[in-house]
Amino acid sequence: MIKAVEWIDDHLRLLDQTLIPTQTVYKEIRTIEEVFEAIRKLRVRGAPAIGITAAYGLYLGMRAESPATREEFFQKLEEKIQYLAEARPTAVNLFWAMEALNKRLQGSPGNDVTALTKRLLELAREVHEDDRRRCDAMADQGQEVVPEGARILTHCNTGALATGGIGTAFGVIYRAHQLGKNVSVFADETRPLLQGSRLTVWELMTAQIPVTLICDNMAAALMQQGKVDLAIVGADRIAGDGSVANKIGTYNVALLAEHHGIPFYVAAPLSTFDRQLPSGKDIPIETRPEDEVRKVFDQCLITVPDVPCWNPAFDVTPPELVSGIITERGILYPPYTESIKNIFGN
Amino acid sequence: MIKAVEWIDDHLRLLDQTLIPTQTVYKEIRTIEEVFEAIRKLRVRGAPAIGITAAYGLYLGMRAESPATREEFFQKLEEKIQYLAEARPTAVNLFWAMEALNKRLQGSPGNDVTALTKRLLELAREVHEDDRRRCDAMADQGQEVVPEGARILTHCNTGALATGGIGTAFGVIYRAHQLGKNVSVFADETRPLLQGSRLTVWELMTAQIPVTLICDNMAAALMQQGKVDLAIVGADRIAGDGSVANKIGTYNVALLAEHHGIPFYVAAPLSTFDRQLPSGKDIPIETRPEDEVRKVFDQCLITVPDVPCWNPAFDVTPPELVSGIITERGILYPPYTESIKNIFGN
Repeated sequence: MIKAVEWIDDHLRLLDQTLIPTQTVYKEIRTIEEVFEAIRKLRVRGAPAIGITAAYGLYLGMRAESPATREEFFQKLEEKIQYLAEARPTAVNLFWAMEALNKRLQGSPGNDVTALTKRLLELAREVHEDDRRRCDAMADQGQEVVPEGARILTHCNTGALATGGIGTAFGVIYRAHQLGKNVSVFADETRPLLQGSRLTVWELMTAQIPVTLICDNMAAALMQQGKVDLAIVGADRIAGDGSVANKIGTYNVALLAEHHGIPFYVAAPLSTFDRQLPSGKDIPIETRPEDEVRKVFDQCLITVPDVPCWNPAFDVTPPELVSGIITERGILYPPYTESIKNIFGN
Repeated sequence: MIKAVEWIDDHLRLLDQTLIPTQTVYKEIRTIEEVFEAIRKLRVRGAPAIGITAAYGLYLGMRAESPATREEFFQKLEEKIQYLAEARPTAVNLFWAMEALNKRLQGSPGNDVTALTKRLLELAREVHEDDRRRCDAMADQGQEVVPEGARILTHCNTGALATGGIGTAFGVIYRAHQLGKNVSVFADETRPLLQGSRLTVWELMTAQIPVTLICDNMAAALMQQGKVDLAIVGADRIAGDGSVANKIGTYNVALLAEHHGIPFYVAAPLSTFDRQLPSGKDIPIETRPEDEVRKVFDQCLITVPDVPCWNPAFDVTPPELVSGIITERGILYPPYTESIKNIFGN
């Protein structure tokens, strides 16, 4: 299995996902500024992988500092959290991972800032390892909704390239494949950034899972012709009512699945739930540069250079279109306000 | 207004639409083989424009022949119709225009093959002129469904670039603009061949109609946010029950419009109706080369070179999703089996 994020001895190794599938280039990263750049430029992507990268990034940032006191240490750390949070304002795992780290680190006593810095690295590695385990757990939990021979439509990329493990939606697919269920995948190309054609196809072909690439606007006809049994996607953020913010185009897939009577599942770790947001309306949507729509691969111009474009990074799928949410602790079903409360124990 | 197809003295001038918007290149065409190539390679596109081009193509083909008799003339003509029909097997206007021409030409008496050839050109020019008039008529008829200030979503390109006149769906938009209705357009980019980003954007900007480009998968979120008042598309073929075959992705737009309570209109001349096909299931769908999905502009590879792709040229929108069909003789409403019978007078 490919590794998108890896900690090697004293530095971070990131697979530069902007170059796949034409080149497989790893970036050796030793500074927080390089981490910021990698997150901002989508060299690393997928909510869990971003969270893990940011955790290592904080360590790389603190390693370069020489705070005199514990107080100064945490003040600097807070600055760095603010700094990295700016790289992808809507990626909730980015905040989550960093805030959780901060809180846990504050639980470590003592004024030895060198020890605190060392502890920060340990915690980042734990975040990474936790994600790997969560992916495995989701993969197992999801099996009950994947029938033998299922033809699965997916959108964007939520696999080993997007997480610290085997992925969220893809983890479920990988596990079904490992179990000999004979699954096959239709991959939406996922404009504008083409995570489907660039990453999903490459990742599934590498894993020898049968995959067929389609343009995003073909999913409707594909379902109409009875060629899809199941849709599974990931999530960037889930509100308290079960509304799912995910890659632009996800809401489209959910509507099509609903119309054609096809189950539509979201696979996401509990860390994706942002219960401070009561409903989908409360989820802020990042608007990305118009040039992403005007170009392919940031180089191939496909339209008039100055045409206005609309480029929201995410859309919000309302809970009534979601058949279930596969988490590491089981599958949540509607009504979500209740099942989400239950799984969090309040 | 730009002219996609023009007859100049003794030859055809085609705007090479595969090069727009980066280059504006006209091809001067003097042989039927060049016409075949232009249709096959989508240098000319849009059902009406293809029909007109084919009509001129038959003349160019016959001009190069020296049939000894009337019988031989029509035998050669039939061969050329078969030949050009192969260039785009599912474009019904291609058959329609050529068969109609053939029939009308057979109405011309006499054994003077030079006169028959000359008459063929006259008829081709009539086909062209008829289309121009039909576009104007559709543009007028469509006004009753376009409110003041309408924000209109469209898919693919159905304007001056696609017809012999101001277009089908675009004709309605152009006329609304001319009438000062303050309309604006959201253009789906229309993968895989990007007619929306390449052609629609260029054409509407040239006409100074406000246009915003979106990726195909963004239309759902756009409608969810209340930013679309109306969807208008063209059609390549309409069955007797009102099922609409049109550019892949049209069915997707129709489903989204239905879900969000947005009127979905089809603008198409009566020549688009193929009443020999009783329902949508009977419409054959052309499958195009997989490389169209793998690449952008036939040059920028966006995925693994050997990934299997699914690439239907069209999809079929069932009649229950169509609010109305704007024709040159009025707007047809459901039940279409009846309204179509009525407009054809039987």
